[in-house]
Amino acid sequence: MFVNNWLSQRVEQSPTASALIYDNETTTFRELGKRVWSIAGKLQTVISPGQHVALLGENNRAMYELILALQQIGAVTVFINNRLTASEINYQLEQSDTTQLLYADNFKELVAVLDLAQRPALSFVSLEKLTAPAMIPNKTVSLKATASMMFTSGSTGHPKAVQQTYGNHLASAMGTAMTNALGVGDCWYCAVPLFHISGLSIMMRSLLFGTAVMLEQKFDAFRLGLLLTEGTITHASVVTTMLHRLLDTTSSTYRCHPAVKVVLLGGGPVTKELLAACQERNIPVIPSYGMTETAAQAVAMPLDKVADKLGSAGLPLFQTQLRINKGTEAADTVGDIWLKGANITPGYYGKQSTDFQNGWFRTGDVGYLDNEGFLYVKERAGDLIISGGENIYPTEIEHVLLGHPAIKEIAVVGVPNEQWTQVPVAYIVTDKAVTEAELAHFLKNKLAKYKWPQAYYHVEKLPRTATGKIQRHLLRQQ
Amino acid sequence: MFVNNWLSQRVEQSPTASALIYDNETTTFRELGKRVWSIAGKLQTVISPGQHVALLGENNRAMYELILALQQIGAVTVFINNRLTASEINYQLEQSDTTQLLYADNFKELVAVLDLAQRPALSFVSLEKLTAPAMIPNKTVSLKATASMMFTSGSTGHPKAVQQTYGNHLASAMGTAMTNALGVGDCWYCAVPLFHISGLSIMMRSLLFGTAVMLEQKFDAFRLGLLLTEGTITHASVVTTMLHRLLDTTSSTYRCHPAVKVVLLGGGPVTKELLAACQERNIPVIPSYGMTETAAQAVAMPLDKVADKLGSAGLPLFQTQLRINKGTEAADTVGDIWLKGANITPGYYGKQSTDFQNGWFRTGDVGYLDNEGFLYVKERAGDLIISGGENIYPTEIEHVLLGHPAIKEIAVVGVPNEQWTQVPVAYIVTDKAVTEAELAHFLKNKLAKYKWPQAYYHVEKLPRTATGKIQRHLLRQQ
Repeated sequence: MFVNNWLSQRVEQSPTASALIYDNETTTFRELGKRVWSIAGKLQTVISPGQHVALLGENNRAMYELILALQQIGAVTVFINNRLTASEINYQLEQSDTTQLLYADNFKELVAVLDLAQRPALSFVSLEKLTAPAMIPNKTVSLKATASMMFTSGSTGHPKAVQQTYGNHLASAMGTAMTNALGVGDCWYCAVPLFHISGLSIMMRSLLFGTAVMLEQKFDAFRLGLLLTEGTITHASVVTTMLHRLLDTTSSTYRCHPAVKVVLLGGGPVTKELLAACQERNIPVIPSYGMTETAAQAVAMPLDKVADKLGSAGLPLFQTQLRINKGTEAADTVGDIWLKGANITPGYYGKQSTDFQNGWFRTGDVGYLDNEGFLYVKERAGDLIISGGENIYPTEIEHVLLGHPAIKEIAVVGVPNEQWTQVPVAYIVTDKAVTEAELAHFLKNKLAKYKWPQAYYHVEKLPRTATGKIQRHLLRQQ
Repeated sequence: MFVNNWLSQRVEQSPTASALIYDNETTTFRELGKRVWSIAGKLQTVISPGQHVALLGENNRAMYELILALQQIGAVTVFINNRLTASEINYQLEQSDTTQLLYADNFKELVAVLDLAQRPALSFVSLEKLTAPAMIPNKTVSLKATASMMFTSGSTGHPKAVQQTYGNHLASAMGTAMTNALGVGDCWYCAVPLFHISGLSIMMRSLLFGTAVMLEQKFDAFRLGLLLTEGTITHASVVTTMLHRLLDTTSSTYRCHPAVKVVLLGGGPVTKELLAACQERNIPVIPSYGMTETAAQAVAMPLDKVADKLGSAGLPLFQTQLRINKGTEAADTVGDIWLKGANITPGYYGKQSTDFQNGWFRTGDVGYLDNEGFLYVKERAGDLIISGGENIYPTEIEHVLLGHPAIKEIAVVGVPNEQWTQVPVAYIVTDKAVTEAELAHFLKNKLAKYKWPQAYYHVEKLPRTATGKIQRHLLRQQ
């Protein structure tokens, strides 16, 4: 199934509409297209269609243009979280069969220690210096083609590359548009990373529906407060941590501008207090639920139901089906959350998974539906910790720390934290003395800093089930 | 490919939003759903899923609800143009394998003379009187299932049933939304018939994007003028004749409200004068091009290009590809217009056609693309006459009139008409005397009145090519 080239279509349909607002500079779709096809022309001199190209950058104009340029030349973009360590990145480059790395120049020290034997690295600046004619855009794009890959650890703790097709991105954008009207003249605030699906999906919606993207290099609570009160933006994607900071920055007399249609909240449950504070300020927050495998939110709360359905993530979007267990359960039955639809990944790159069955995807999360079909997520997969909007998988941290000679046994759990919602802490059984400083030093090149346990608790033994499985819930209660 | 039940989804997402405004009464989606599932429950007692059910009604609440109820029970709705004669309708019932007729009670005289041997007829009022529990809605709908059939004569003059799947309707709605933002709070004016794709597609968009439909039983130019100047509606579908009447009703000091986003113009080319008069009045008219086979417009003009690209129908919508001839022609090459995309019918019911090749559909129309890809339609298929927004195929009229004993040869062509844009006239070769009154009497039960020639010109012979083909263009020049 082929559709018209998204960027071309958008440039033709609304050439003078705002496409990207970054660092106080506004770019129209026509200007953006021109830039992207210029970069795509340069890319074509080094990259072939279908090639897996890892991208290491941050939220800025160069990254934005490059993502679009890679799509235009038909490359598969492997998105690298820029907070990872060299060894984590090496693992991902290997797993994803990456044969080319593109990186922003401020990551050059990190790149210098990566394993680049099989994959040349080219900095954004070097790429820009290449000379080549602008690309003549392809007329169409296949909805089955893979646009992007992003790593997720899932419940196993081994990062897997989620493949996202153009069809996935399209279905995701459509589901969003059918819930919250999107169009030329709207502006979506993006301070979430472009290398996450939350950020990438904002870009995709922009191409498809002609909305502008207000791209932020770093989240700044005061600035978001200003944009919301002035009505400069109409939509925003935020994680709980951002919302907390926004509330800390503003007083109860603060009011969001009525032009703001939706503040989409991902990354964990929302409390009654948070919601009440937002409503007092007229901030139209809607909770949502989704993951890398669903190309952004698959379930979202209708705005006028937020107060009635506290604790719920809402209803499945238009193209997404949702069931608990086999789908024959009565309301309020807790069980596995399964999703199906055109927004769901065709699978993990190079890995079979029993999580995909007859078109259905087992999220690994557990929850229930109420009698009106609203989803309540009870427990995230594999005791997932969500910290500042980043997913942290305890098993991944445990695997790394078990490599330290002093640690015999370990269990990592999330504990509540005011600033980050949750942070990981570790329960360890040791057979020789070890300090936290030593463990920090050990983790330094192995694990991104945001995943490091914030505390280590020495215990004599870990609580286990009869079959030997660690009972994390007992640890969390401590 | 299954997606969530459109009506259920919409009722869940925006229960309190306006769904239908008819005769000054507003219905919310929740109320509409309740009504539709009540009717669907009654329908289930007489109709099975997959059954072909012809619908003979007019633009009103009962018809609106019934169309949705037929979708809910999984029937295939065969839309009957209520201006046709009994013999034309019999042909369509036969061709479409209709096994049930539903009709509005004011058509009972017409129904009394139809061939109902194989197909029971049930009036809307009788249906309403049935008692049955409300339908429990299906969770999903298949995008491959046929939702509707509508007859088109095409270039052959033999009416063919165009099958429109849910996927066709979805792609059509999406293409529209990506061009003109659609959402809850918007209101689409519908005075075009629900039994035409122009009307039906407004209903489908409403379910998918949550827009309200302002349904009009009859077109009233003054009322449209009022709605547009008050900004009660945000979108409208009109044909050229309606626009002319609107302009006749209003003076040059009239101004359309800025809340009106788009007035979508179908059914034939737009003149410079018409466009200038609309622009003077701030009416945001955009020309478009589409047909029953493309589930509404497949090509539309971006609003800010209307003035620059006079005479063009615009650019293909998001999911539609467009080519001239083989697609390798240079700009400005005139040739067959081909279309491809998820909005294109899978084919005519029960009929093979060479117009479908490798996923491409030959429209039968002729045109060219300019160097920016804008479509200019030069000639409609089979010398199509567009009169008051209705397609009239000369060959169909010719076939019927050749059945009159006095007529030896005939050629029907369209001539310009101020009120209807075009009307058919006939050039006839006769071997005995015949009056216009006799011919009108002959046509009475055979052909809908809007198709009748407005004048008959007696000629000694028709202009023909060396191979005997009638040269209609020579007749049009007379």
